[in-house]
Amino acid sequence: MGEKIVIIGGVAAGPKAACHARRLMPDAEITILDQDSLISYGGCGIPYYVSGDVNDEDELRKTSFHMTRDVPFFADAKGVHVRTETRAVKIDREKKCVEVVNVVSGEKDSVPYDKLVISTGSQPFVLPIPGADLDGVYTISDLHKAIAIKKGLSTGKIGTAVVIGGGAIGLEMAEAFADLWGVETSVIEFMPQLLPRIVDKPLATMLQRHMEKQGVHIYTGEGAQALEADENGKVCRVVTANRTIETDIVVMAAGVRARSELAKEAGLHVSPFGIVVNDRMQTSDPNIYAAGDCVESTNIITGKKTLAPLGSLANREGRVVGDNLAGIPSTFPGVVGSFIMKAFESCIGTTGLSLETALAEGFDADASMTAPSDRAHFFPTESKMPMQLVFDKSNRRVLGMQAFGANTDAVLARVDAAAALLSKGGTIEDFSLLEMAYAPPYATAIDALNAAANVADNIAAGRQRNVLIGDYLAWMDNQSSQPDWLALDIRHPNEVGPFAEKFGDTWMGIPYNEIRKRHGEIPKDKTLIIICDAGTRSYEIQVLLDSVGLSDSLVLGGGFNCISRMGVDWWPKK
Amino acid sequence: MGEKIVIIGGVAAGPKAACHARRLMPDAEITILDQDSLISYGGCGIPYYVSGDVNDEDELRKTSFHMTRDVPFFADAKGVHVRTETRAVKIDREKKCVEVVNVVSGEKDSVPYDKLVISTGSQPFVLPIPGADLDGVYTISDLHKAIAIKKGLSTGKIGTAVVIGGGAIGLEMAEAFADLWGVETSVIEFMPQLLPRIVDKPLATMLQRHMEKQGVHIYTGEGAQALEADENGKVCRVVTANRTIETDIVVMAAGVRARSELAKEAGLHVSPFGIVVNDRMQTSDPNIYAAGDCVESTNIITGKKTLAPLGSLANREGRVVGDNLAGIPSTFPGVVGSFIMKAFESCIGTTGLSLETALAEGFDADASMTAPSDRAHFFPTESKMPMQLVFDKSNRRVLGMQAFGANTDAVLARVDAAAALLSKGGTIEDFSLLEMAYAPPYATAIDALNAAANVADNIAAGRQRNVLIGDYLAWMDNQSSQPDWLALDIRHPNEVGPFAEKFGDTWMGIPYNEIRKRHGEIPKDKTLIIICDAGTRSYEIQVLLDSVGLSDSLVLGGGFNCISRMGVDWWPKK
Repeated sequence: MGEKIVIIGGVAAGPKAACHARRLMPDAEITILDQDSLISYGGCGIPYYVSGDVNDEDELRKTSFHMTRDVPFFADAKGVHVRTETRAVKIDREKKCVEVVNVVSGEKDSVPYDKLVISTGSQPFVLPIPGADLDGVYTISDLHKAIAIKKGLSTGKIGTAVVIGGGAIGLEMAEAFADLWGVETSVIEFMPQLLPRIVDKPLATMLQRHMEKQGVHIYTGEGAQALEADENGKVCRVVTANRTIETDIVVMAAGVRARSELAKEAGLHVSPFGIVVNDRMQTSDPNIYAAGDCVESTNIITGKKTLAPLGSLANREGRVVGDNLAGIPSTFPGVVGSFIMKAFESCIGTTGLSLETALAEGFDADASMTAPSDRAHFFPTESKMPMQLVFDKSNRRVLGMQAFGANTDAVLARVDAAAALLSKGGTIEDFSLLEMAYAPPYATAIDALNAAANVADNIAAGRQRNVLIGDYLAWMDNQSSQPDWLALDIRHPNEVGPFAEKFGDTWMGIPYNEIRKRHGEIPKDKTLIIICDAGTRSYEIQVLLDSVGLSDSLVLGGGFNCISRMGVDWWPKK
Repeated sequence: MGEKIVIIGGVAAGPKAACHARRLMPDAEITILDQDSLISYGGCGIPYYVSGDVNDEDELRKTSFHMTRDVPFFADAKGVHVRTETRAVKIDREKKCVEVVNVVSGEKDSVPYDKLVISTGSQPFVLPIPGADLDGVYTISDLHKAIAIKKGLSTGKIGTAVVIGGGAIGLEMAEAFADLWGVETSVIEFMPQLLPRIVDKPLATMLQRHMEKQGVHIYTGEGAQALEADENGKVCRVVTANRTIETDIVVMAAGVRARSELAKEAGLHVSPFGIVVNDRMQTSDPNIYAAGDCVESTNIITGKKTLAPLGSLANREGRVVGDNLAGIPSTFPGVVGSFIMKAFESCIGTTGLSLETALAEGFDADASMTAPSDRAHFFPTESKMPMQLVFDKSNRRVLGMQAFGANTDAVLARVDAAAALLSKGGTIEDFSLLEMAYAPPYATAIDALNAAANVADNIAAGRQRNVLIGDYLAWMDNQSSQPDWLALDIRHPNEVGPFAEKFGDTWMGIPYNEIRKRHGEIPKDKTLIIICDAGTRSYEIQVLLDSVGLSDSLVLGGGFNCISRMGVDWWPKK
């Protein structure tokens, strides 16, 4: 008989480690323990199951070749013994066994191991507010809850919904409610923007406007203070500091925390982020590995510890665990933080650090905001894809990238390429020269990612001086606060017209291709805010004006393409 | 007055160098010389202009903000002087001037330079066959010829077309003819596959079948021997060794060669690939730079010299030239060879080396063939994306990647990410752990690229033993040639049925999840060819059979998903 390998947790990292180890160790006796009756499902697919894109919950449990990943499947196909509805209650490291209890029968048992893998995942954070435990309040923690929500939707009992939390799961659930089911949906986010700490405010605002246009109500900077019940004890209202929202259902998606109690009680090293592992995914006990949402991760860019609860990482870590169980010394290098999300007709993605995070981490960071085309501008399906590249001015290392584009794989392509370079410490030059594939249906000759790096190069070299979008918007809201600013709008006169009319003295229009001849008309005593559609022409004009002695200017990076997507109330009516 | 910069060639690298230099050197006097009347157009867009995806040739000449890049635009907006219809006939390095002649008036002139940039591009190779100069025979070398072809199409005079050359331009032109215009189109390729030296035969065959299904006739391994004329001297027939094809038009797309004559006559170092430059794009004369299709490139992976005529590279090189003209010591690291092409409803892309090229270059190369999903298999828009990862067995370095998928940006995402890692010498481990972004609408938890690397890991580690697709197909064509082979088909019995019936003794079906129990039924005296849809399950079964003493087996990598796309005549009728 081979080595006894026991794995606690059967959703993502656990089954991956089990199956990979099985292929490397034909003689090992491999057992997965899980307290649930359903295992090995695509948890990230839950919003698409709720929305109806995926018809049947069973599809989330199937392999790509249409077999359901249930207990017999693991036994017959994989040679892995799975004990469902079996909760691990204690790890006895002395005796090398896991004490378990059957959650249905209450029967107790002890499962011996030679090597143990902890893949207990994460659990949703439940806000400590009144009513959090009411009927009709859900977290998105397992398939059973998703099934219950969809049942409610399909029986027509849900006309309104409130999602607490503007992170990925919350927003995906909001789309699921609003898009196919036509549910009147509100999202409440405590932080002042959607996807906090994931993307910076400009892109978060573009995302918010897009979702609002699709009918989702979004309230940022607003926390849920209480959930209130109807006469049957079912949730019916969400109360914030600013409003009360009537609702038929509440989804609480306020983040997750690592499930590390078992490990902690067993005396393993556990940090606030999760179970501490080395780069071979080994805990402080060399016979015990851990992988997935329950472990503390290392951010490759900051070098610091973090929580990175993603199914994709869980699978990659599970493979590393499988290797190490079999004596192959594979390592997991840490995470860069790749992220992508569909939002109705749009897609938002990022990798690495946001500018806000980079600055908070102490980097000498700056960012280039651009609005490049996702494919040749003459190709019919082209659309603009606002993109921000975050970099360290001191050493020109790229720290992060974020993009907001159409609901195609265009954002994915740039996120994945950027993630690859980030994993290797890529610099602005690496991004500028990266050989992105080119054909007009898929990209531009200078790819969006190259173009963003070229702008970063100009900024890092001190050739391009930008106004922050936030400062520009503040000025537009109250132009008297910066009396010496003048908008120099270099777009086509037809585009400039309504702005010049509305904003009078603070707005000057000279077309891009006339400035070389007409710069004498520009006042010398104002700070010029150079405005075009994307920022590219504005930079050219900044350089030109510098050369003729008009050096007090700032470029609006990303231009009006970004501003119009962010939605502002001062935009002239058509 | 600033430095005099003269640039010969005004399509891609030249204008890029000019405009970038202008922004860095406000005082420089910058002149572009071009023999054509049209400059700075998106040459790669020509097939889409011909097809009608792009209505007007003017769109290929416009900026993304809808200004036409003509002589006044360069003068007014860019501050760059362009002399069109001005052919450079000699570079006088002693006097530092370019002798030019106006191609309309014949007037001669001499243009002095302090720094010179040669960006003379490439020219199509014209086959030395009878009739190559007939009326109705076109190369795709400039916009004028594209305009003439489209005129012919739109006046309904073209009902049949022959494209000579199965490279990217030839295939894009074939699609342009066949798709929108319904022209009966044939492609002739001298080599035994489409996209020779770009992708390997399996993917080239998938591409060929897809195009044939769309009605394009494709003849590989067949050279055009003569073009014949009708009574008006217009081409009307293409003759090969095997057939004569009647046609109204012939497009010759048989590759390009660098236009390096001027440089050579001026005594600059020129190789068979093009003008020799250092990594700062400087020729053997330090005052002369060169960029674009006319220069010799360095392949980053082989370290060898090559020709890499791509508009995207030309633009990146142009920027490096601009930097160096201004004293910024930027370098161009060489090319990895990223490529992408639309083909009707499909997309094919690659980066790095094909297996054939890698072997020819002397690498200890092997490849993993897989058929992963481009997004979560439960997501409605999912489709399979056959992918081949080429790697060096001796040091596990990845040498190349190629993929064939739906006409989305899915292939692009994997090509771009792979190109990024290739540029950094990425290994199988780097690809396996690369943090590709994951959400079900865009990717799988273990991304296609990660999955391909995991298979490569299994192969490199000696755990997975594959049959080459070519050997498998040869066996299927003549099963008696390998009498000791037995197909072990582990798919669902419904799928196996017709094959078992047709192939009798050479075909055995046991479902994947029953082999653990039923392996005793498998004959021990045969080499097993393990077959599933993608190859993944086959590998699991190979490992399982190894552990029970049935170790004489080979996996069909990529499985029947790849085989069915390649099109075979032995496939059982439904």
